[in-house]
Amino acid sequence: MKKEIWPGGALLAPVPPALVSCGSVEKPAVLTVGWTGIVNTRPPRTYVSVRPERNSYPMIKESGEFVINLPPARLARAVDLCGCRSGRQVDKFSLAHLTATPASTVSAPLIAECPVSLECRVFQSILLGSHEMFLADILAVQVDAALLDDAGRLCLERADLLAYAHGGYFRLGEQLGSFGYSVRKKKKRRPLPHKKG
Amino acid sequence: MKKEIWPGGALLAPVPPALVSCGSVEKPAVLTVGWTGIVNTRPPRTYVSVRPERNSYPMIKESGEFVINLPPARLARAVDLCGCRSGRQVDKFSLAHLTATPASTVSAPLIAECPVSLECRVFQSILLGSHEMFLADILAVQVDAALLDDAGRLCLERADLLAYAHGGYFRLGEQLGSFGYSVRKKKKRRPLPHKKG
Repeated sequence: MKKEIWPGGALLAPVPPALVSCGSVEKPAVLTVGWTGIVNTRPPRTYVSVRPERNSYPMIKESGEFVINLPPARLARAVDLCGCRSGRQVDKFSLAHLTATPASTVSAPLIAECPVSLECRVFQSILLGSHEMFLADILAVQVDAALLDDAGRLCLERADLLAYAHGGYFRLGEQLGSFGYSVRKKKKRRPLPHKKG
Repeated sequence: MKKEIWPGGALLAPVPPALVSCGSVEKPAVLTVGWTGIVNTRPPRTYVSVRPERNSYPMIKESGEFVINLPPARLARAVDLCGCRSGRQVDKFSLAHLTATPASTVSAPLIAECPVSLECRVFQSILLGSHEMFLADILAVQVDAALLDDAGRLCLERADLLAYAHGGYFRLGEQLGSFGYSVRKKKKRRPLPHKKG
């Protein structure tokens, strides 16, 4: 394939269009953040990058607490709204029909309508230019009980999570494989049990 | 919905299952990394988190250079292989049918089969526990010319990018909206121009 060479740009996709909640249950704030990711597995650590101009920025900066909520596809419009409008002008919770509920380890609230929420506490922040990166420990995870199968395993595909890619909101589509499938040995076929009669 | 509260975990999805290439065109290495994201827009900055045990780690650590390649869905099996096998044991480029080609700004190679590649140079690294986070400037972006429309706009949906969520590899599915769609004013219908009989 023929390649075009462009100047550097923030072209990474797909990313999770996370609803980040902060403040308190009584005075909650929420913003949509595409700039998030896991930065460490043990201990579990993540980040969000936020522009200092945003309404939520001083709340995260001062409290050092936030919650990353993963939205299902049916919240696409709410996710977009929380990325386009400022809490200074509108009540996003009311407009987007979102509910702030208490977290288990931080004072920042969860978004009740999201099936997965990561409760986070900042351990370091770095101003990188347009954005400040808040590095945080993931203290607890809350998941919708309906995502668990009978054995208690998480079936995340049931969550119908939203993805974001270059300005578009997408459902996840066809599953092509699962971790390790390219190197998994095929099971040998056992002989069929002898059928009587 | 009823929520279960779990200890903290690295449960963020979907993430880009990036093919990260490093080394040189003559001695290339590649590994799959789910722990990546954009950390700043202006200047464009990203990160990858890599375990020090991995074969590619000293190459990134010493050269301070790597390329993030976004794989299309048809490379799902190659992406899985490059996450499960070590370059110490096997030649991943040969096994996964990948080609290392020169980048424009760094000595680390691109993966020719990926439609989007971000050429990166490390400006800071932080050991966070199991992983070291390499923060990097995105110096250049290479995109498949076939992704551009006649006006030169990037149509990323043509790339059929792969997503990763909780152990599964997925295509992107149905598009539900585009950035700003929740607040865009509907265009007023203009009266039709008068047709001459």
